[in-house]
Amino acid sequence: MEGNKSSLNIPKSKFKITGYGMYLPPLVESAEELAPKINKTTQWIISRAGVKERRVSQIDVDKMGALAIQEAVGDKNKPDLIINASGVPKQVIPDTSVFMQKEIGYSGIPSFSVHATCLSFIVALNIAGNFIKSGQYKRIIVVSSDRGTCGRNFTEPESAALLGDAAAAIYIEPSHDKSGLIDYSMESFPEGATFTEVRGGGTNLHPQDPKTMASDNLFTMNGPKIFKMALDKVYVRINKDIDQNKISKSDIKLLIPHQASGKGVRAYYQFGGFQKEQVMDIVKSTGNCVAASIPLAMVMAQKKALFSEGDLIYLVGTGAGLSIASALIKI
Amino acid sequence: MEGNKSSLNIPKSKFKITGYGMYLPPLVESAEELAPKINKTTQWIISRAGVKERRVSQIDVDKMGALAIQEAVGDKNKPDLIINASGVPKQVIPDTSVFMQKEIGYSGIPSFSVHATCLSFIVALNIAGNFIKSGQYKRIIVVSSDRGTCGRNFTEPESAALLGDAAAAIYIEPSHDKSGLIDYSMESFPEGATFTEVRGGGTNLHPQDPKTMASDNLFTMNGPKIFKMALDKVYVRINKDIDQNKISKSDIKLLIPHQASGKGVRAYYQFGGFQKEQVMDIVKSTGNCVAASIPLAMVMAQKKALFSEGDLIYLVGTGAGLSIASALIKI
Repeated sequence: MEGNKSSLNIPKSKFKITGYGMYLPPLVESAEELAPKINKTTQWIISRAGVKERRVSQIDVDKMGALAIQEAVGDKNKPDLIINASGVPKQVIPDTSVFMQKEIGYSGIPSFSVHATCLSFIVALNIAGNFIKSGQYKRIIVVSSDRGTCGRNFTEPESAALLGDAAAAIYIEPSHDKSGLIDYSMESFPEGATFTEVRGGGTNLHPQDPKTMASDNLFTMNGPKIFKMALDKVYVRINKDIDQNKISKSDIKLLIPHQASGKGVRAYYQFGGFQKEQVMDIVKSTGNCVAASIPLAMVMAQKKALFSEGDLIYLVGTGAGLSIASALIKI
Repeated sequence: MEGNKSSLNIPKSKFKITGYGMYLPPLVESAEELAPKINKTTQWIISRAGVKERRVSQIDVDKMGALAIQEAVGDKNKPDLIINASGVPKQVIPDTSVFMQKEIGYSGIPSFSVHATCLSFIVALNIAGNFIKSGQYKRIIVVSSDRGTCGRNFTEPESAALLGDAAAAIYIEPSHDKSGLIDYSMESFPEGATFTEVRGGGTNLHPQDPKTMASDNLFTMNGPKIFKMALDKVYVRINKDIDQNKISKSDIKLLIPHQASGKGVRAYYQFGGFQKEQVMDIVKSTGNCVAASIPLAMVMAQKKALFSEGDLIYLVGTGAGLSIASALIKI
């Protein structure tokens, strides 16, 4: 076993997260305040969505992301790449990364966006890991910024009760010790493509198409169908990751799941075989922040010193698609 | 010189493009047919935009992309990753890659989208190259599918005269010879962020926002400003790429530019120091197909045998952002 565990000493990509930043909008919307808007009780929101309060941003996703980037960069060198990994863009063209750069005042560095809805951050982190490994980039920002409250459908209380706004960013650099990306996986199952949607905004139901209804431009989720499909597949994924890395669940210092819903986060310790203390749970106070949920939970955990150098952390979640992604990281 | 040239024998990422596919919609719209819609003459369209005809798709971007993927895959193994690299999505959530997978009937393989507007294909190809290099994926599809005609603003004839629809895909695998990605670059200059836009569709001017106007959901381009900014920066970029790879322009078998406009493509041989025969020019018959232009031109060139094994090809272009990207590839 010891011999096997030492395989952890060779990450697929050696990097260190040297900066963490976040932006939590100051405006809090409580379950009490939301209740009349969605024609439900406070108790219904808290028991069904598991969200007591969420933040509502009054600035747009580019400004939110730029604030998170600035905190992550701190007094370090200007990054040589920005990857925006958000669920919903500022606008169709150009991609949001350019507007984040503009906000900060950077010019001439490359930036682009990666989109895998709520899993965008994990996917982008793996891309960044590959860039670090090949040496193509050395100071990479991965940033997620989402303003899901803009797209709430108040006539669909199940999803409207979940969404909140936030941005979070990390700064990664090559590492010469044992830190980095130990393992990564992603799988997409399009049979669940319609379980979470914003149907408008693109060529399908174009905003100018007379057939496009207001609800097409808003979030819709089929929570029970997602939960059922996700539960099985995530369980299989976690066990595969644990087995192929020859670790046990107790070796993971902190599991940072996508904050899909109260029930979705609880499932990791109720059915997933982890201890409650191992699972980062911020959904009660921030809601489901789409792609920003995972990095936000990671940055908040770092600020609370819930992990430290040498620890194993495990990011995992499901997103629209339906997709599943995971990343095992040695800090 | 010979010694320097041999550095070309070591691509940054060794891969071979083993499949090429494209979808050109059957419906042709000629300049004559477009002229009355934009209140201009046929001659104006041909002289200003350089587009005699374009294709107009009657199927959506996911179906278009799936057809291109199927041709690229042919009788080879199912890919282990699909990267959608398009300019405009089918819808906001989920990302378009999932719908392409659904269309083909794949399930369980990973897919996500990369967005850098017209440069998405070059950016995604570099990501794919990094994956091949690290060994994480071995059979990657990069696909671009755009239906810009959906978003034409007929009251802005300069941009409406340019856009056309197409999809194109390539299949890449590890190579054990000298083929692959020799060099790659990308830079973004957000001072040009407003030169090419579709302002709606996201959180900025949300489709449900009463302030959002019809024109916000349509393409807008400031051709002269883009041309001026791009001309200088692309010229510098090309010369850097030539110099740092210790080649001369005549070593490049085919330059495949983004098909921005007739004038934009001609600039490569009028001001860029290339021979007319070296520059792939399809804009007259397909228009500006947003992100699909570069891979479409590449796939058409391959079908016409305009390059073959061992040749150097050079992809380059500018996109909304304003961004510039280039890729030097040994076939």
